[in-house]
Amino acid sequence: MKSYEYRVQVEWGDCDPAQIVFYPHFYRWMDEATLHLFDEVGLGWNELQEKYGVPGLPLISTHADFKVPVVFGDKLVVHAGVSEWGSRSLTVSHTFMKGNRVAVEGWEKRVWARPDPDQPGRLIPFPIPDEVKAKLA
Amino acid sequence: MKSYEYRVQVEWGDCDPAQIVFYPHFYRWMDEATLHLFDEVGLGWNELQEKYGVPGLPLISTHADFKVPVVFGDKLVVHAGVSEWGSRSLTVSHTFMKGNRVAVEGWEKRVWARPDPDQPGRLIPFPIPDEVKAKLA
Amino acid sequence: MKSYEYRVQVEWGDCDPAQIVFYPHFYRWMDEATLHLFDEVGLGWNELQEKYGVPGLPLISTHADFKVPVVFGDKLVVHAGVSEWGSRSLTVSHTFMKGNRVAVEGWEKRVWARPDPDQPGRLIPFPIPDEVKAKLA
Amino acid sequence: MKSYEYRVQVEWGDCDPAQIVFYPHFYRWMDEATLHLFDEVGLGWNELQEKYGVPGLPLISTHADFKVPVVFGDKLVVHAGVSEWGSRSLTVSHTFMKGNRVAVEGWEKRVWARPDPDQPGRLIPFPIPDEVKAKLA
Repeated sequence: MKSYEYRVQVEWGDCDPAQIVFYPHFYRWMDEATLHLFDEVGLGWNELQEKYGVPGLPLISTHADFKVPVVFGDKLVVHAGVSEWGSRSLTVSHTFMKGNRVAVEGWEKRVWARPDPDQPGRLIPFPIPDEVKAKLA
Repeated sequence: MKSYEYRVQVEWGDCDPAQIVFYPHFYRWMDEATLHLFDEVGLGWNELQEKYGVPGLPLISTHADFKVPVVFGDKLVVHAGVSEWGSRSLTVSHTFMKGNRVAVEGWEKRVWARPDPDQPGRLIPFPIPDEVKAKLA
Repeated sequence: MKSYEYRVQVEWGDCDPAQIVFYPHFYRWMDEATLHLFDEVGLGWNELQEKYGVPGLPLISTHADFKVPVVFGDKLVVHAGVSEWGSRSLTVSHTFMKGNRVAVEGWEKRVWARPDPDQPGRLIPFPIPDEVKAKLA
Repeated sequence: MKSYEYRVQVEWGDCDPAQIVFYPHFYRWMDEATLHLFDEVGLGWNELQEKYGVPGLPLISTHADFKVPVVFGDKLVVHAGVSEWGSRSLTVSHTFMKGNRVAVEGWEKRVWARPDPDQPGRLIPFPIPDEVKAKLA
């Protein structure tokens, strides 16, 4: 699969009084890595909107397993790629490396959908175009 | 002047490895307090959009003075009110009380503006209606 | 099980350009709700440190399912409680209600551990005291 | 003066429903840029603690002027440097460039202080060593 390497430097404000990363930031970094992965193949959120009427890829589920403490000053490499395709959804997997150890493993299941013209604020899932799958395969 | 009391409980994730609030959160709380102040008089961001075509109140300048350390578990009361009116801008002042001591004093200068129909992404300031000033006086 | 109701008002800065909550904030609110649940029974993070030498409860895994869009101005009620006990870990479940609909369901698996005196920065899990389980049952 | 160039890519989650950066993030980036500036000359927060017993540099005042809207996808360069020295405090100035335009100008006044052995949680300011000033001049 197409993979993207996203580099994260852990900043002071990312850490909590226990001297480790406040965990919601890992999800922020997953969101960022997903976007950079898509952007890398010409499918950034602005492009998705223009080409497919898709305003970003809303989340269905997200998950993370924390394996090694991550602290202020750590430099991480996140390996992100689409690990599973549904007809109207996809799963992006994220592996956070701290040196040669896996620090965090997570994934995001996202839906391919556009606004419902009849119900403002609601989205309707629809099939992911083959060309999108091809670019990220 | 019309004043709003906004209550903040300092959470674990608001604090940094030095065991004190990571300071950008004070600005987050100011933004929240400003919005609640306006909402209290029927001028929440959604109402501003509907009534005046004003999508929130963009910032010109913001400032804060930090006087007393604020730590995990502290309960603060923010006193927010419009302390100064310009013709097309206004300043909201925020006093953060920790018990009977002033912990932080800050202010936000914001502009009254709407999107420029000729230049997407740009805003044009225009005079603040008297009825808005009256509600917050 | 002992349950805690945590109230969340969705603020402007919690939302993203798609006009919905930027999803890592749901994990922030879960972390806050967990802490308030423990605090409610006299086991806040400061108390855990004093009584058991336990500096907060580090995460092993976290998960969330997103069911209903949550937008600026929404008022949510999070129902939090310990849904599963291991010998050295526990799982806190979180149900976010938006009115009478479940908006988000999530959980956090956390470890009961204290610093390893021989290896700075590392934690050693140890059995959760029965009195702790009793207070949250 | 010694200057540091800090690069910021504006991410989706940094922006609010008005499609612009939620302003507290500019302060987060200032805090990060300050730390990288000090780190660049061998005075990162961990080094400050080890060499001088100084646990980071607490804030006295911060300020920002917002001049040009910053949106998702923008790439900014922050120029950070110590623009003023007091005997026990210093001011770091930050200029955020968006292309060749100044988007935001801000500053942070910080104190040089260490924990008071007699009063836990309080800090005592003391004179900034000349060698520190020399490294950042």
